[in-house]
Amino acid sequence: MKSNQGAGGPPRGNPERTFSGLMERPVGKCTRCKAPAAVRLPSHNSMFCPDCFDQFFLTAVIRALKIVPLPREAPVAVAVSGGKDSLAVWDVLHRLGFETRGVHLDLGIPQFSEASIDAAREFAEKRGLPLAVHSLEELFGHPLPRIRSQVRMDICSVCGTVKRSYLNLLARQAGAGVLVTGHNLDDEAARLMGNLIHRRKRYLEKLYPFLAAAHPAQAARAKPLYRVDEAEIRAYTSLNHIRPAQGGCPFSRGATSTYYKTALLWMEGEMPGTKRDLLWGHIRENGPPQGDAFGSCERCGEPTGAPLCGVCRLKDRMENQDLKSAGRP
Amino acid sequence: MKSNQGAGGPPRGNPERTFSGLMERPVGKCTRCKAPAAVRLPSHNSMFCPDCFDQFFLTAVIRALKIVPLPREAPVAVAVSGGKDSLAVWDVLHRLGFETRGVHLDLGIPQFSEASIDAAREFAEKRGLPLAVHSLEELFGHPLPRIRSQVRMDICSVCGTVKRSYLNLLARQAGAGVLVTGHNLDDEAARLMGNLIHRRKRYLEKLYPFLAAAHPAQAARAKPLYRVDEAEIRAYTSLNHIRPAQGGCPFSRGATSTYYKTALLWMEGEMPGTKRDLLWGHIRENGPPQGDAFGSCERCGEPTGAPLCGVCRLKDRMENQDLKSAGRP
Repeated sequence: MKSNQGAGGPPRGNPERTFSGLMERPVGKCTRCKAPAAVRLPSHNSMFCPDCFDQFFLTAVIRALKIVPLPREAPVAVAVSGGKDSLAVWDVLHRLGFETRGVHLDLGIPQFSEASIDAAREFAEKRGLPLAVHSLEELFGHPLPRIRSQVRMDICSVCGTVKRSYLNLLARQAGAGVLVTGHNLDDEAARLMGNLIHRRKRYLEKLYPFLAAAHPAQAARAKPLYRVDEAEIRAYTSLNHIRPAQGGCPFSRGATSTYYKTALLWMEGEMPGTKRDLLWGHIRENGPPQGDAFGSCERCGEPTGAPLCGVCRLKDRMENQDLKSAGRP
Repeated sequence: MKSNQGAGGPPRGNPERTFSGLMERPVGKCTRCKAPAAVRLPSHNSMFCPDCFDQFFLTAVIRALKIVPLPREAPVAVAVSGGKDSLAVWDVLHRLGFETRGVHLDLGIPQFSEASIDAAREFAEKRGLPLAVHSLEELFGHPLPRIRSQVRMDICSVCGTVKRSYLNLLARQAGAGVLVTGHNLDDEAARLMGNLIHRRKRYLEKLYPFLAAAHPAQAARAKPLYRVDEAEIRAYTSLNHIRPAQGGCPFSRGATSTYYKTALLWMEGEMPGTKRDLLWGHIRENGPPQGDAFGSCERCGEPTGAPLCGVCRLKDRMENQDLKSAGRP
């Protein structure tokens, strides 16, 4: 028995107060223009009509760009999973006039990966935007499910390692010096809470929406959606007729980050603004991290803080595992 | 409608994992001695029989005393509300051979305060321990409900102010240089989480189970129960036939600390040990706070960090309110 709230479901707080996002039918007036409201934002003590919400959402990203410096004179790579977050950030940056290039890493997870690619392709084609799709099998030699069945490691951290490395490579191939991801307020606040609880100082320092490149072959990493939460992003994609891939990754069930998200969701319901206070306060107080310079991997030359990069270490593990299996009677 | 979990109720996580504390009937063997278990402690991955649990509980306090230095040669004042926490800490310190003197501040809250005094008196009489009871009405001039109806302030923080001041006074009158309170792991972890979320640096520094006196007329403050949680304290009082006052303070409904407690309770259910990791890690890393010296209140001479102490400022507010009311037609 997993939980008495339903499988992985959040403990619901006060439904009158937690209800945030798109409304099924208008039940009030827009805080700004008095037209029928479509989106409810308890943490802003506001309701918005579709147009004013769109303005609100764009403004949130424009504010984020003050500390997330994206270039206007060069292309920006967008890491596109096909989910709501990555499609929303791509859409907004495109609308704001940035030259964007989508990069997608096909992890090879049956059904999930196909749906993800379809959603990313549909989005890109509709807007005539470039999208480079490369598979983990082609780049690394194995799709994620094979890695998962072969090495005894937390699959979410394996996935993080390969994404960090190959999305950086794809950004470079796209001629971009910055890689944008769709990480949102919930993602970042949950990560912050986990790192605060376990006092992971190095991670706390790096929890900032813009990380400068630490190596000539590394793209800077940017999170322009750090000021908007999941409900706001869902409302944005829905009102803008963006169709993200449905359903989460089948491998991520039980990821610890979801516990912190659930706890924060509940606190947010009781005390609207908690997530924002937590994350924005941290960002304001800590400022951008001091960048440590990275070296090059001894084997493949990719940026890394260790002698061997995470991908090369993973390859070694896969090979050792092969040898062990082969040695068995 | 307050919440779909019942009035103020916590979102329950996995009941198999969150269930912590006294069991209704033995369902396993004691981790230490294999006798039928009576208490389940998921965060310690243990079950204990009554005797081994008692040993566990005493050991937790003895460990706490390593950084909570209580004197053996002088009496120790225990702030006794009559609730489970204060009676448990008084009981343990008495059993460990400390010379304890109970001090109780009667807040004058109908029913609640009477039940509190009764519980404290019954406990003290059974053990032949001294208990000094003084009322807020006698010391301050008004009971808490009158203050509540007269000044527009958060009543929990008013109560904190008067308790801090008068319990310090009662400790001094009892000849004690240390005032012990029953604050437990849940209290302190919840306070820590709130202070982390809102980055209250000064409070974060002071979140330590022993605060040295900052003024000659001030008692040091000690929290020997910081290593045990509410479920453990409930089990301790029950197994030791201690009868605390039932029911919480009628004024504290909706206190923000309960939100953090609820969120932590849920996280603890999903990841046993979260509260401990959070609080003990903070204590270990930060160590005791740098003590700022306090001055004396310009009016009453009591210790304070401001020109006027909190109690004198509260008196001023009460008088201004009286003048305003009298000036009204």
